[in-house]
Amino acid sequence: MIGGGRGAFIGAVHRIAAIMDGQSELVAGAFSADPKRSQASGADLLLSPARTYRSYVEMAKAEAAMPAERRLDFVVIVTPNHLHFHPAKLFLEASFNVISDKPLAFNLAEALALQKVVRKSKKIFALTHNYTGYVMVKQARNLVRSGKLGVIRKVVVEYPQGWLSTRLETTGQKQASWRVDPKRSGAGGSVGDIGTHAENLASYITGLKIDELCADLTSFVKGRRLDDDANILVRFKGGAKGVLIASQISVGEENNFNIRIYGDRAALEWHQEYPSDLVVKYPDRPREVWRSGNAYNEMGAKRFDRVPAGHPEGYLEAFANIYREAFRAISAEVEGRKAPSHLDFPTVEDGVAGMLFIENVVKSAKSGSKWVKFRSPS
Amino acid sequence: MIGGGRGAFIGAVHRIAAIMDGQSELVAGAFSADPKRSQASGADLLLSPARTYRSYVEMAKAEAAMPAERRLDFVVIVTPNHLHFHPAKLFLEASFNVISDKPLAFNLAEALALQKVVRKSKKIFALTHNYTGYVMVKQARNLVRSGKLGVIRKVVVEYPQGWLSTRLETTGQKQASWRVDPKRSGAGGSVGDIGTHAENLASYITGLKIDELCADLTSFVKGRRLDDDANILVRFKGGAKGVLIASQISVGEENNFNIRIYGDRAALEWHQEYPSDLVVKYPDRPREVWRSGNAYNEMGAKRFDRVPAGHPEGYLEAFANIYREAFRAISAEVEGRKAPSHLDFPTVEDGVAGMLFIENVVKSAKSGSKWVKFRSPS
Amino acid sequence: MIGGGRGAFIGAVHRIAAIMDGQSELVAGAFSADPKRSQASGADLLLSPARTYRSYVEMAKAEAAMPAERRLDFVVIVTPNHLHFHPAKLFLEASFNVISDKPLAFNLAEALALQKVVRKSKKIFALTHNYTGYVMVKQARNLVRSGKLGVIRKVVVEYPQGWLSTRLETTGQKQASWRVDPKRSGAGGSVGDIGTHAENLASYITGLKIDELCADLTSFVKGRRLDDDANILVRFKGGAKGVLIASQISVGEENNFNIRIYGDRAALEWHQEYPSDLVVKYPDRPREVWRSGNAYNEMGAKRFDRVPAGHPEGYLEAFANIYREAFRAISAEVEGRKAPSHLDFPTVEDGVAGMLFIENVVKSAKSGSKWVKFRSPS
Amino acid sequence: MIGGGRGAFIGAVHRIAAIMDGQSELVAGAFSADPKRSQASGADLLLSPARTYRSYVEMAKAEAAMPAERRLDFVVIVTPNHLHFHPAKLFLEASFNVISDKPLAFNLAEALALQKVVRKSKKIFALTHNYTGYVMVKQARNLVRSGKLGVIRKVVVEYPQGWLSTRLETTGQKQASWRVDPKRSGAGGSVGDIGTHAENLASYITGLKIDELCADLTSFVKGRRLDDDANILVRFKGGAKGVLIASQISVGEENNFNIRIYGDRAALEWHQEYPSDLVVKYPDRPREVWRSGNAYNEMGAKRFDRVPAGHPEGYLEAFANIYREAFRAISAEVEGRKAPSHLDFPTVEDGVAGMLFIENVVKSAKSGSKWVKFRSPS
Repeated sequence: MIGGGRGAFIGAVHRIAAIMDGQSELVAGAFSADPKRSQASGADLLLSPARTYRSYVEMAKAEAAMPAERRLDFVVIVTPNHLHFHPAKLFLEASFNVISDKPLAFNLAEALALQKVVRKSKKIFALTHNYTGYVMVKQARNLVRSGKLGVIRKVVVEYPQGWLSTRLETTGQKQASWRVDPKRSGAGGSVGDIGTHAENLASYITGLKIDELCADLTSFVKGRRLDDDANILVRFKGGAKGVLIASQISVGEENNFNIRIYGDRAALEWHQEYPSDLVVKYPDRPREVWRSGNAYNEMGAKRFDRVPAGHPEGYLEAFANIYREAFRAISAEVEGRKAPSHLDFPTVEDGVAGMLFIENVVKSAKSGSKWVKFRSPS
Repeated sequence: MIGGGRGAFIGAVHRIAAIMDGQSELVAGAFSADPKRSQASGADLLLSPARTYRSYVEMAKAEAAMPAERRLDFVVIVTPNHLHFHPAKLFLEASFNVISDKPLAFNLAEALALQKVVRKSKKIFALTHNYTGYVMVKQARNLVRSGKLGVIRKVVVEYPQGWLSTRLETTGQKQASWRVDPKRSGAGGSVGDIGTHAENLASYITGLKIDELCADLTSFVKGRRLDDDANILVRFKGGAKGVLIASQISVGEENNFNIRIYGDRAALEWHQEYPSDLVVKYPDRPREVWRSGNAYNEMGAKRFDRVPAGHPEGYLEAFANIYREAFRAISAEVEGRKAPSHLDFPTVEDGVAGMLFIENVVKSAKSGSKWVKFRSPS
Repeated sequence: MIGGGRGAFIGAVHRIAAIMDGQSELVAGAFSADPKRSQASGADLLLSPARTYRSYVEMAKAEAAMPAERRLDFVVIVTPNHLHFHPAKLFLEASFNVISDKPLAFNLAEALALQKVVRKSKKIFALTHNYTGYVMVKQARNLVRSGKLGVIRKVVVEYPQGWLSTRLETTGQKQASWRVDPKRSGAGGSVGDIGTHAENLASYITGLKIDELCADLTSFVKGRRLDDDANILVRFKGGAKGVLIASQISVGEENNFNIRIYGDRAALEWHQEYPSDLVVKYPDRPREVWRSGNAYNEMGAKRFDRVPAGHPEGYLEAFANIYREAFRAISAEVEGRKAPSHLDFPTVEDGVAGMLFIENVVKSAKSGSKWVKFRSPS
Repeated sequence: MIGGGRGAFIGAVHRIAAIMDGQSELVAGAFSADPKRSQASGADLLLSPARTYRSYVEMAKAEAAMPAERRLDFVVIVTPNHLHFHPAKLFLEASFNVISDKPLAFNLAEALALQKVVRKSKKIFALTHNYTGYVMVKQARNLVRSGKLGVIRKVVVEYPQGWLSTRLETTGQKQASWRVDPKRSGAGGSVGDIGTHAENLASYITGLKIDELCADLTSFVKGRRLDDDANILVRFKGGAKGVLIASQISVGEENNFNIRIYGDRAALEWHQEYPSDLVVKYPDRPREVWRSGNAYNEMGAKRFDRVPAGHPEGYLEAFANIYREAFRAISAEVEGRKAPSHLDFPTVEDGVAGMLFIENVVKSAKSGSKWVKFRSPS
């Protein structure tokens, strides 16, 4: 594990997600840019001091030199955004599989470079857009793909949070301070941190690609340099329309991530805070509430259930589903087997799409909220 | 009553709203442009044939000639949009109070002209933006005005319907046919029909005025000339931001009108389909659900309750609340008393604001969805 | 109208329910046992003093003497429970149709006597078990009758309120004072006031008859003589089981009346505070939410809709549905026509069942909460 | 681990719960009464064949003989009910800490015997009444204990499931077959399987002890010998009343476990299927929705949060919370430290209370649903 030391939030989430199914074990780490903090964090986690490294560079070197049977099967990168690219590149080039937190990189240029590295390396690269790990998100995708909604006309996706309603970054809160810093977070504030989740969720479920967008970004909290609120009109290729909202000043909201998708035959609605419910609405018959854990869900969704219906799936299990699926690929890679078919985890391509999204949103906002046409990355 | 004959929908709603509290009685009407249909409708309603008119022009003349004690106290206009202005003007100039369905008129020019007529007439003019009649909408306004939310930063207001997902207008459905016809509906489709409700609700609760907007209008159903879907970014005077969605192709939605308002101290959320609940969200304490019928609501809201808490308020009661409040003004006018203070019903000014909204939305959409600055009507 | 003067609650509800559809008008009343209060209440309601009576006895006499074309078509009784029987009998015997608030009478003996009077009179007698007026309750009944749920196995019906959590009756609150007084309310407290609604709703939807029950009644508030909390196990004829809860000390509850019915094929759930939703649950497919106002509901339900789907039905409309249906019978009676088929309003038989329920519940409670077998009233 | 081999459900849940926080590892097991199945299950779990035992008796012997540093810190018992007592006794007497699935034993006699063994052994014994592991259940307890609700008057607790609505036990479904078999399940069907969860939850949150109860048990499915539906009236010591419902034929229900608790000052409501929400209702102010993950929760609840507010807690995390807390005690025991204060996990005493509950419920039901006074186990 790279990053995720004391004071970090997402590192612990990744650790639980990685071990939940008894398929992996934490054996090495470089948990902080500060070597002492790294050592202390390793000790907290009952790790051998020998494999608690002072830096990820040291770690890459040392681990690459290990005999095959002791070598890491994969590394997990849970650092702030500006420190995704370099360790990912380093470990991929040293022949390690990589699981990285999102967004993919600091900017689009890095993202495209990393894409090339991944392709060249032939290693597995998974990006933890964790919300697509929920069973009912997978079922939503299945319903769309099976044609149940007909042709998609409209997507409304919102990710409102309220935790940055005040100037939390000046209080020493570690999560806030790097997220509002353009040098560590990149060009997007709320857009990068959670807007990319919204973009990814819409894309995962519908398969639609953004054609152009018009973004109104605001920094409501005085002195904040990155956006803390984003309202975006979207036009998808093929004619569907969308509204995408990401906000970290929507006071009182926790992680009220939700999506509504309207086709010409039916619609669906899903809320991350109540993830076991997927509502399907029809023009001419009663609404349905599809629930996780049921046999009636399609195989591509229900194979991710761990417990029977009525036992709520949590955030950590959804996160672990990303890991579980990536492990199917990683095991094959490690054992030299052919990759299983029907893999379902976010990859470097999703990451590139996310960086492209951020770049275009910021471009629109900086141009006076004009419409910006997406250019395809080559 | 002008309009509201056989086959109409909103006429019956107005009739129930008007009589619910035992304060008024239907005594005369011109229910249709077709004299026979008007007579038949009058008979349906047990009206005297003598006061069932062949046209509203005839009605205005005949009723104006009545002795004071038999004269109408007010007329209700429930015709399609293109027939709001002329009867309203006619009856106002003949010294009748007027209650009119929304939007105010066919276009902004008519609206401004009507505003002048109202001012000159010194008669009461009420516009049935009925959703502001709900008790918890009134409580929402009270909470905002009392400063509970702090400075408003963001408003998300949506009015999704699905009933025009297919080309209903070609089936002879009367409600659909005039609403999609630019000659009867005006320049806005979904924007005029329900977008104005959204604009009015946001304005009613927050008091914010739109400064500029960027609108993406779509006609999803083939052959339809007016928009059936509207996604609009809004900037309010003073710095607040907004997203306004109106849609009649959001398949499976009934009247899922809802609003979320975020201040710098707290937020609120209200859904028209579950109108007795008003959710207030805080950064640092449990969410609250305020409910209609309770003594803890403020006087400006709870004076509209008819039944105790837990007995749901319906659409018709909210509608009747507009009437009930307008009647307070009309009674005073009729009896030559001073108007009561604290009147709470939509007026011609709300109507002008609505027409200004439609005009600017359409202007933005036609300009390639550019931002349009509101000009103040003089 | 008998009763319902100043300070009363349910009188106003009946008046709105009666006039909402423009089918009736209040023309006479004896609003209070206190002649002055009766006169004052009549004046409040803009009634002619000549038809505002000092007592219901006077009223019955005077109105019976009126010429046919001015005579009342029906009277409405909205007095406390101990004053239901006598005026009902009086007016029925004077050939008036009667609409009465529930419960039917003060005790079972009165109820049975009244049943005989009704039968002999051949007049219409309607009892306002208003909750069965909701459209989705009617749809629930239709679903059960159509066999959608299969054989009913279990019914859980609850009516929790909190308004009598404290000793409100000592504060002069009129509603509380008669309800907790055995001389005016009868043998049941919460059981009579709201338990009968629960019994009636279960019976209305399922058609099941209670075979035996075991009741635990409590008076939680010190000094209160009637039960303010009732927990009852029920066995229905045919083998279904039930739990019936009525409580007026369930603090914080408003009118959280709800029912769940389990068959061997499907189940349904309905909540009075959110009356437009009817949830149907299946063993092997997604839950459904049936909503009022939709064409997919059965005729026996949707003929009671006044507004389109998504415009919430309120308590008053449900109440008015009882009136609307009773009016179909009353109009026929008045005009000497044959009664329409498919009438759907509660009658004296429902009232007798309710009194039988109260009597048996109290009997069980007084016997140390033993099981009590229902005897059939002859 | 004892039990939990191929085809079992709850074994996998325990394994995830045990390892989620990186504090324990599965190293040995006797997974089935069938030695071959045990071996196969051990292999599935990547366990060393040397520590995959043919029986738990063999396992106890072999593990007890291990050197201290390799010895198990605790064993987990996840067998059907009739196989809880013997292995628990065996391992406790061999000086192992034990974590056991509920109910505690096959009958009350075993339960009391086991209680003695636990006391004598001075080992840690934890019983996985997992629903008390949810953060908001802990917060509910804190609210009750802090007096926020005042004196508790009424408890309504329901655990409806629908999965045994049909005769599933004849299809070879392993979960169903032992649960409906009196030889393996004990005297209670739904009462033992889920009724004990309901009893435990009510007791955990309120601290109330049952004084007497009256139970109506039914076997709705033909040929089933144990109850599949239980409706129980409860009187608590001190005067509070209760209704407890457990059902496995409530068709369409998944695990709709919920509780409502009414005090004389406020009430609370919690639903297992939406576990992050805890609703508090007051007589005179807005309802509150307390949510997991927030700083405003009390320490005794929020110390169990793993992720920030708005990221839903799942069934597995709640289950893991029982483990996490038991581990605090087990670590202390293993290291010879003093047990930490404020331990919060179910113990043998909860298990005895559960068996006492089952025994009395069945006794009441068999006596024709008479009231049964609880006798205290000595």
